[in-house]
Amino acid sequence: MYVIVVYDVSVKRLNRVRVFLKQYLNWVQNSVLEGELTKAEYMKVHSHLKNIIDEDEDSIFFYHVRDKMYLGFDELGTRQSEIDTII
Amino acid sequence: MYVIVVYDVSVKRLNRVRVFLKQYLNWVQNSVLEGELTKAEYMKVHSHLKNIIDEDEDSIFFYHVRDKMYLGFDELGTRQSEIDTII
Repeated sequence: MYVIVVYDVSVKRLNRVRVFLKQYLNWVQNSVLEGELTKAEYMKVHSHLKNIIDEDEDSIFFYHVRDKMYLGFDELGTRQSEIDTII
Repeated sequence: MYVIVVYDVSVKRLNRVRVFLKQYLNWVQNSVLEGELTKAEYMKVHSHLKNIIDEDEDSIFFYHVRDKMYLGFDELGTRQSEIDTII
Protein backbone atom coordinates (compact mmCIF):
# COMPACT_ATOMS: atom_id res chain seq x y z
CA MET A 1 0.00 0.00 0.00
CA TYR A 2 1.08 3.57 -0.65
CA VAL A 3 0.82 5.76 2.43
CA ILE A 4 0.90 9.51 3.09
CA VAL A 5 1.33 10.54 6.71
CA VAL A 6 0.59 14.12 7.76
CA TYR A 7 1.20 15.13 11.35
CA ASP A 8 0.51 18.04 13.64
CA VAL A 9 2.45 17.17 16.77
CA SER A 10 3.63 19.24 19.73
CA VAL A 11 7.24 20.44 19.47
CA LYS A 12 8.00 18.29 22.51
CA ARG A 13 7.36 15.09 20.54
CA LEU A 14 8.13 16.32 17.04
CA ASN A 15 11.62 14.96 16.69
CA ARG A 16 10.70 11.55 18.05
CA VAL A 17 7.78 11.25 15.64
CA ARG A 18 9.86 12.43 12.70
CA VAL A 19 12.82 10.16 13.40
CA PHE A 20 10.52 7.17 13.81
CA LEU A 21 8.56 7.85 10.62
CA LYS A 22 11.74 8.30 8.60
CA GLN A 23 12.63 4.69 9.26
CA TYR A 24 9.67 3.70 7.11
CA LEU A 25 8.75 6.60 4.85
CA ASN A 26 10.33 9.36 2.79
CA TRP A 27 10.17 12.92 4.00
CA VAL A 28 8.53 15.05 1.29
CA GLN A 29 7.37 18.27 2.95
CA ASN A 30 7.33 19.82 6.39
CA SER A 31 5.09 17.41 8.40
CA VAL A 32 4.47 15.09 5.41
CA LEU A 33 6.04 11.73 4.63
CA GLU A 34 5.05 9.13 2.08
CA GLY A 35 6.04 5.75 0.78
CA GLU A 36 5.26 2.12 0.16
CA LEU A 37 4.45 -0.02 3.21
CA THR A 38 3.28 -3.56 3.65
CA LYS A 39 0.10 -4.00 5.66
CA ALA A 40 2.22 -5.32 8.54
CA GLU A 41 4.53 -2.30 8.44
CA TYR A 42 1.53 0.01 8.34
CA MET A 43 0.06 -1.59 11.46
CA LYS A 44 3.42 -1.33 13.20
CA VAL A 45 3.83 2.36 12.32
CA HIS A 46 0.28 3.11 13.41
CA SER A 47 0.55 1.34 16.75
CA HIS A 48 3.99 2.72 17.58
CA LEU A 49 2.87 6.29 16.87
CA LYS A 50 -0.14 5.71 19.09
CA ASN A 51 2.31 5.03 21.92
CA ILE A 52 4.58 8.00 21.38
CA ILE A 53 2.09 10.80 20.76
CA ASP A 54 -0.22 12.45 23.23
CA GLU A 55 -3.64 11.71 21.78
CA ASP A 56 -5.15 14.73 23.55
CA GLU A 57 -2.76 17.17 21.91
CA ASP A 58 -1.40 15.67 18.70
CA SER A 59 -2.99 14.66 15.42
CA ILE A 60 -1.73 12.23 12.79
CA PHE A 61 -3.52 11.43 9.54
CA PHE A 62 -2.83 8.38 7.41
CA TYR A 63 -4.08 8.48 3.84
CA HIS A 64 -3.50 5.33 1.81
CA VAL A 65 -4.22 3.75 -1.53
CA ARG A 66 -3.90 0.11 -2.46
CA ASP A 67 -1.55 1.00 -5.30
CA LYS A 68 0.24 4.25 -6.08
CA MET A 69 -1.32 4.17 -9.56
CA TYR A 70 -4.61 5.27 -7.97
CA LEU A 71 -3.03 8.40 -6.56
CA GLY A 72 -2.72 11.56 -8.64
CA PHE A 73 -0.18 14.14 -7.64
CA ASP A 74 0.73 17.71 -8.58
CA GLU A 75 2.88 20.23 -6.83
CA LEU A 76 3.58 23.95 -6.88
CA GLY A 77 6.64 25.74 -5.61
CA THR A 78 9.89 24.45 -4.27
CA ARG A 79 10.62 21.48 -2.03
CA GLN A 80 12.75 22.58 0.85
CA SER A 81 15.65 20.47 1.89
CA GLU A 82 14.79 18.57 5.02
CA ILE A 83 17.54 20.24 6.98
CA ASP A 84 15.69 23.57 6.80
CA THR A 85 12.80 22.23 8.79
CA ILE A 86 14.61 20.44 11.58
CA ILE A 87 14.33 22.25 14.86
CA MET B 1 -12.21 13.99 -7.87
CA TYR B 2 -11.27 13.89 -4.20
CA VAL B 3 -8.38 16.19 -3.35
CA ILE B 4 -6.01 16.60 -0.40
CA VAL B 5 -3.97 19.79 -0.34
CA VAL B 6 -0.97 20.08 1.98
CA TYR B 7 0.92 23.34 2.10
CA ASP B 8 4.12 24.74 3.54
CA VAL B 9 3.84 28.44 2.89
CA SER B 10 5.63 31.46 4.35
CA VAL B 11 3.75 33.19 7.18
CA LYS B 12 3.48 36.25 4.93
CA ARG B 13 1.19 34.40 2.51
CA LEU B 14 -0.34 31.87 4.87
CA ASN B 15 -3.61 33.60 5.52
CA ARG B 16 -4.25 34.38 1.87
CA VAL B 17 -3.60 30.75 0.88
CA ARG B 18 -5.77 29.42 3.69
CA VAL B 19 -8.69 31.76 3.04
CA PHE B 20 -8.61 30.96 -0.67
CA LEU B 21 -8.46 27.19 -0.17
CA LYS B 22 -11.32 27.27 2.32
CA GLN B 23 -13.62 28.49 -0.42
CA TYR B 24 -13.22 25.10 -2.10
CA LEU B 25 -12.07 22.57 0.51
CA ASN B 26 -12.58 21.62 4.13
CA TRP B 27 -9.91 22.37 6.66
CA VAL B 28 -8.92 19.10 8.40
CA GLN B 29 -5.55 19.67 10.05
CA ASN B 30 -3.01 22.43 10.33
CA SER B 31 -1.88 22.97 6.68
CA VAL B 32 -4.17 20.25 5.30
CA LEU B 33 -7.49 20.63 3.50
CA GLU B 34 -9.51 18.09 1.59
CA GLY B 35 -12.70 17.75 -0.39
CA GLU B 36 -14.50 16.96 -3.60
CA LEU B 37 -13.68 19.13 -6.61
CA THR B 38 -14.65 19.02 -10.24
CA LYS B 39 -11.78 18.94 -12.69
CA ALA B 40 -12.54 22.59 -13.56
CA GLU B 41 -12.45 23.63 -9.91
CA TYR B 42 -9.20 21.77 -9.44
CA MET B 43 -7.60 23.62 -12.34
CA LYS B 44 -8.86 26.92 -10.97
CA VAL B 45 -7.51 26.24 -7.47
CA HIS B 46 -4.16 25.11 -8.88
CA SER B 47 -3.73 28.14 -11.16
CA HIS B 48 -4.87 30.67 -8.56
CA LEU B 49 -2.46 29.28 -5.96
CA LYS B 50 0.32 29.48 -8.52
CA ASN B 51 -0.36 33.22 -8.67
CA ILE B 52 -0.48 33.90 -4.96
CA ILE B 53 2.45 31.86 -3.68
CA ASP B 54 6.14 32.53 -4.12
CA GLU B 55 7.33 29.47 -5.99
CA ASP B 56 10.88 29.94 -4.70
CA GLU B 57 9.83 29.80 -1.07
CA ASP B 58 6.53 27.96 -0.76
CA SER B 59 5.46 24.40 -1.46
CA ILE B 60 1.98 23.05 -2.13
CA PHE B 61 1.17 19.39 -2.75
CA PHE B 62 -2.04 18.16 -4.34
CA TYR B 63 -2.89 14.48 -3.89
CA HIS B 64 -6.01 13.30 -5.65
CA VAL B 65 -8.02 10.19 -6.38
CA ARG B 66 -10.73 9.77 -8.98
CA ASP B 67 -13.19 8.70 -6.31
CA LYS B 68 -12.97 8.91 -2.52
CA MET B 69 -13.65 5.16 -2.37
CA TYR B 70 -10.05 4.56 -3.50
CA LEU B 71 -8.68 6.48 -0.54
CA GLY B 72 -8.15 4.76 2.81
CA PHE B 73 -7.93 6.89 5.91
CA ASP B 74 -7.00 6.45 9.56
CA GLU B 75 -6.19 8.98 12.20
CA LEU B 76 -4.61 9.15 15.63
CA GLY B 77 -5.07 11.82 18.24
CA THR B 78 -7.33 14.80 18.38
CA ARG B 79 -8.37 17.20 15.67
CA GLN B 80 -7.79 20.72 16.83
CA SER B 81 -10.41 23.30 16.19
CA GLU B 82 -9.35 25.51 13.36
CA ILE B 83 -9.30 28.60 15.56
CA ASP B 84 -6.30 27.21 17.45
CA THR B 85 -4.14 27.31 14.38
CA ILE B 86 -4.98 30.72 13.02
CA ILE B 87 -2.15 33.16 13.48
